[in-house]
Amino acid sequence: MHTHEVLLITIPFHSFDDCYSRLRKLQPSLEIIHYNTKDIDIVPSEVWAKATVHLTLYLFSRSREQSPRLKWVHLYSGGINQALNAPLFTDKNVVWTRNGGVHAPQIAEWVVGTLLAYFRQLPMLLKWQESGIWKAEEYKSRGDLLGKTVGFLGYGAIARHTARILAACGMRVIVYTLHEKSTTKQRQSKTFTPKHTGDPEGDIPAEWHHGDLNAFLSTHIDVLVISLPSTDKTRRSIGKEQFSKLKGAYVVNIARGDIVKTEDLVDALENDSLLGAALDVTDPEPLPQGHPLWSAKNAIVTPHVSGISDEYMPRSIDILDENLNRIKAGNELINLIIRSEGY
Amino acid sequence: MHTHEVLLITIPFHSFDDCYSRLRKLQPSLEIIHYNTKDIDIVPSEVWAKATVHLTLYLFSRSREQSPRLKWVHLYSGGINQALNAPLFTDKNVVWTRNGGVHAPQIAEWVVGTLLAYFRQLPMLLKWQESGIWKAEEYKSRGDLLGKTVGFLGYGAIARHTARILAACGMRVIVYTLHEKSTTKQRQSKTFTPKHTGDPEGDIPAEWHHGDLNAFLSTHIDVLVISLPSTDKTRRSIGKEQFSKLKGAYVVNIARGDIVKTEDLVDALENDSLLGAALDVTDPEPLPQGHPLWSAKNAIVTPHVSGISDEYMPRSIDILDENLNRIKAGNELINLIIRSEGY
Repeated sequence: MHTHEVLLITIPFHSFDDCYSRLRKLQPSLEIIHYNTKDIDIVPSEVWAKATVHLTLYLFSRSREQSPRLKWVHLYSGGINQALNAPLFTDKNVVWTRNGGVHAPQIAEWVVGTLLAYFRQLPMLLKWQESGIWKAEEYKSRGDLLGKTVGFLGYGAIARHTARILAACGMRVIVYTLHEKSTTKQRQSKTFTPKHTGDPEGDIPAEWHHGDLNAFLSTHIDVLVISLPSTDKTRRSIGKEQFSKLKGAYVVNIARGDIVKTEDLVDALENDSLLGAALDVTDPEPLPQGHPLWSAKNAIVTPHVSGISDEYMPRSIDILDENLNRIKAGNELINLIIRSEGY
Repeated sequence: MHTHEVLLITIPFHSFDDCYSRLRKLQPSLEIIHYNTKDIDIVPSEVWAKATVHLTLYLFSRSREQSPRLKWVHLYSGGINQALNAPLFTDKNVVWTRNGGVHAPQIAEWVVGTLLAYFRQLPMLLKWQESGIWKAEEYKSRGDLLGKTVGFLGYGAIARHTARILAACGMRVIVYTLHEKSTTKQRQSKTFTPKHTGDPEGDIPAEWHHGDLNAFLSTHIDVLVISLPSTDKTRRSIGKEQFSKLKGAYVVNIARGDIVKTEDLVDALENDSLLGAALDVTDPEPLPQGHPLWSAKNAIVTPHVSGISDEYMPRSIDILDENLNRIKAGNELINLIIRSEGY
């Protein structure tokens, strides 16, 4: 007989009742208790006492004593920084997973959208439209994505779906990963991948690099997509030296702002040593009014909204369902956090 | 022994010397004579007399007597309207081809770029950036392309490459064509297709429709892409009645402005019966200052620039080279104009 699973949901937004109903249908024996709260004291001690699974963004159990039956925490975010100091984060009897793959479709669409905005010059064309003057004669091509090379720093779910779309545009895809990925098995994704998306087998890249980052950046890259987790190894790892290797590429950051040295990025944009940049993440966040990054040359800056999607909770439910089935079957979960690596 | 082929080029822009040199290398026995002109009298009669092939945009031979050796005219445009009244357009001894496929990469990129601009709300985000204020809390999702349906009216080279990219985004692709396309052979493209682009075999669409246009529009379509030639059959064929079938779709027109009834389009946008529209072609063109389409709700209007690309002439040369080889081998040319259909 299976354990009676009790899912505690603490998400500080509205209640996603349709999604919870769908999960109840998928998992008839599952008990679901949900709170829309940022306040840990709202959750009664008897609920902590019986919860076996916890879906959460900011709130964590204070101790093993508070939640003796807890065996699995699923983070409602792709990054895990807010969980690093959670009391049970290092508890060997609790498995931690994250919302990897939930963001991939919408963030990949943001990347492709902003990239095409640069190459097809939409900001200028929108200004022309506002002026109401037909200026076709002034338009000069910036070339097509077809035939260009995109390099990914990190090849997780977001990068994989972006690669799928850009490969369809006729771009050559190359990747750099922290660890060597030489076998078919190493190249497979271990992250949730919605149907018709991504690159679950890792078939798309023409080249896989690891090791010397500057050597990777020195191969001819037209577009660099930063899609790495922010860790002690990656923080402030992209600056003046790295931009100089790129020789005029377009840079996209949808990871975390602090991977890039902001002051070096502003300099590189202003002195034309980069074509341009699309940034949904900045350092600091929120970016203060008057910060030079807001108006840096050829930069598109958006306020960390690329992950927002109506489908965010529905896809999170898909992961919970998949992993509840894996628990029943005694299989390893998907979207496991690698605690030793910090992502 | 092969005919001595003489290529006359009359393109009213600058001289593409690099491209002509490349073609000379590919076709060593070809004689190339080029004029950057809109004035037909600039071309001497002895050049007309010996030309066997003519690459042109606006200038056409006045008569069979003027150009007795002429056997093939290649239009430097995708549409053919400007050639319909050319003296030799109906001459059975002259083959006419058009620049189909040359525009596909850049126009497909424009379509995907503007579509993502709508769904990821780039015009609003660019305004936020100009204001320099971090407004993340105000952002509301418009949903993702993943899982939505795109319908194409016409499935030529531009539509096929757009379909390739949107299918990679996880969209469902359905098409409507004037003639029934029920066999594998009928679904194949007869148009130049650069490597790593398009859908040459017609494998992508989940459904192929023909016949009742309103029935096609009434299937659940989220995005309609108008990619038909402008002919007597298609002109002003999309108006109020058709928009009413679409039930709130996003409409993209990269074909010709006069396929759509502009006044009905403005109404449909203003009364929210369409989600929005992206238009690179308008009726009339140029769109006059003060025309209501410039400021129609949720419309992106650009001045017929989506086809502009640095790669336009290089790809045109690829077609000339391919067809010169086909002439030598006695094979049917690609990119033939179907004179009876007017495209």
